[in-house]
Amino acid sequence: MDILVSEVGPRDGLQSIKRAMPTAVKHQWIRALADAGLKEIEVASFVPPKLLPQMADAAEVVREAVKIPGITVLALVPNMRGFQDAVAAGAPKITLTVSASEAHSMSNIRMTCAQAIESARRIVEFRDSLPAGHRPLIEVGVSTAFGCTLQGAVDEDFAISMAVQCAQAGADSVGLSDSVGYANPAQIRRMFKRLNAELGDKAGGAHLHNTRGQGLANVFAALEAGVDSFESSFGELGGCPVPKGATGNIATEDLVSMLHEMGVETGIDLDRLIEAAREAQRVLGRPLGSHTIVAGPVDWHRA
Amino acid sequence: MDILVSEVGPRDGLQSIKRAMPTAVKHQWIRALADAGLKEIEVASFVPPKLLPQMADAAEVVREAVKIPGITVLALVPNMRGFQDAVAAGAPKITLTVSASEAHSMSNIRMTCAQAIESARRIVEFRDSLPAGHRPLIEVGVSTAFGCTLQGAVDEDFAISMAVQCAQAGADSVGLSDSVGYANPAQIRRMFKRLNAELGDKAGGAHLHNTRGQGLANVFAALEAGVDSFESSFGELGGCPVPKGATGNIATEDLVSMLHEMGVETGIDLDRLIEAAREAQRVLGRPLGSHTIVAGPVDWHRA
Repeated sequence: MDILVSEVGPRDGLQSIKRAMPTAVKHQWIRALADAGLKEIEVASFVPPKLLPQMADAAEVVREAVKIPGITVLALVPNMRGFQDAVAAGAPKITLTVSASEAHSMSNIRMTCAQAIESARRIVEFRDSLPAGHRPLIEVGVSTAFGCTLQGAVDEDFAISMAVQCAQAGADSVGLSDSVGYANPAQIRRMFKRLNAELGDKAGGAHLHNTRGQGLANVFAALEAGVDSFESSFGELGGCPVPKGATGNIATEDLVSMLHEMGVETGIDLDRLIEAAREAQRVLGRPLGSHTIVAGPVDWHRA
Repeated sequence: MDILVSEVGPRDGLQSIKRAMPTAVKHQWIRALADAGLKEIEVASFVPPKLLPQMADAAEVVREAVKIPGITVLALVPNMRGFQDAVAAGAPKITLTVSASEAHSMSNIRMTCAQAIESARRIVEFRDSLPAGHRPLIEVGVSTAFGCTLQGAVDEDFAISMAVQCAQAGADSVGLSDSVGYANPAQIRRMFKRLNAELGDKAGGAHLHNTRGQGLANVFAALEAGVDSFESSFGELGGCPVPKGATGNIATEDLVSMLHEMGVETGIDLDRLIEAAREAQRVLGRPLGSHTIVAGPVDWHRA
């Protein structure tokens, strides 16, 4: 495997859809993704159900998902409370989000950027106090690293300094997120080169959106910068609340199709992945944004 | 202007839509595109109306379009007959298509690849025999250069040799077309580097599709190979007949948004371009594939 594709559809995709998916359907989807060869799946977000009723079953989803052999189950948490709940449910790897924009940080997790770093530090300390064998890996995603719908431009030095501080706080890896779909390939290449230079082994992956059709261009630019892990959502499930109707995460099958065509291995069975995405499309009853679930894989041509 | 964006929506986009657009609507769209700052617009295809009724008004469309100041009007032709008709209508620049796949060549223009080169040579000779001031520029697009839905894999050496032979036949420029949406960024970069090395000043642009969401990734790879001209379709108008329902050309506004965000100039007013695409969407009465007509431009952030 040359590249790790980290599937975030069951969390980021479903979080963006108002309708709450039954827990049994989530289980089916996660199993289908694991069967397609996905090695890492973000299955839930531990936030107050009042804020995000779609994720009210987070603990149950994690408890079921960790029974599936061969995958790393990821859960997203905004704070210590969420972290403790995710640990209790048995999540072996946990994603913390911080923002590179003060406005987004306040809006998303009700902390300043400095408070978010302090919160990350306390969470790492708590993790380290747990008994051996019960300490989840901690990955941080620096969101709005390439611009923010609330604040506008984001200072690149500040975004990198947030990543550095998270690594210093003890996170195992720190990636950059274009959670609003603003990034362009030149910026992606520049920023990930800096991230890799500053963080070394702790440099994490890219969380990219396809808001203006540039998602896979950003993947290609990130590959050139040495990024070896990408977050994506099967079916291009999900969307962005701003602006209304815009698409969200890059589609896992579009990502995998491009990587395989380039000769980059992922360990994923593209046909089975497409089938999983088509099943999600059937359940949701509306066309999803993924291109490859319409076009199918490139059958005849190999680079 | 750093990059030439060559708009092909009125030709390639409309050609792929079964419903024939009234000539007056085409005129309006072409004017709107010119008003948005597009410098080159492919407005029609000179093929037998029996084969392509959507293009039956090609001569009229060209005659009207050439009245618009500041744009280069392009017409596509499959053969000498089409070339003569395009010249008679006053097209100042004409695109000839040849294929890098024998199967596609026979299916598309009913010539072998060798016959297509010979046809190009005769067309250039005919052009050179015209009175000065009435000799259109001749650009060739080598289609299926990255793979073919009929033939499968296409030999890269053969595709490049087709381009070289077209240049030797006297074409002013020769580009490569991924008219079926098979290309991946690694291949695009490799092939355009070869094209530039072999053809020098005669190396033309990239005609790219977004069939599996990889269109702008291919643009970014082509930019790295030194390509400075791209064909795209406003609104992502059009589609690919194979497979059914798949999208076609890359969307002009997605391309322009990415280029501008990267700091690459096109001379195009993105807001007006988006308005032109939204108008086409209204006329067609169905959502088009373009992302930026949904998301709008990146207002706040500049790389």
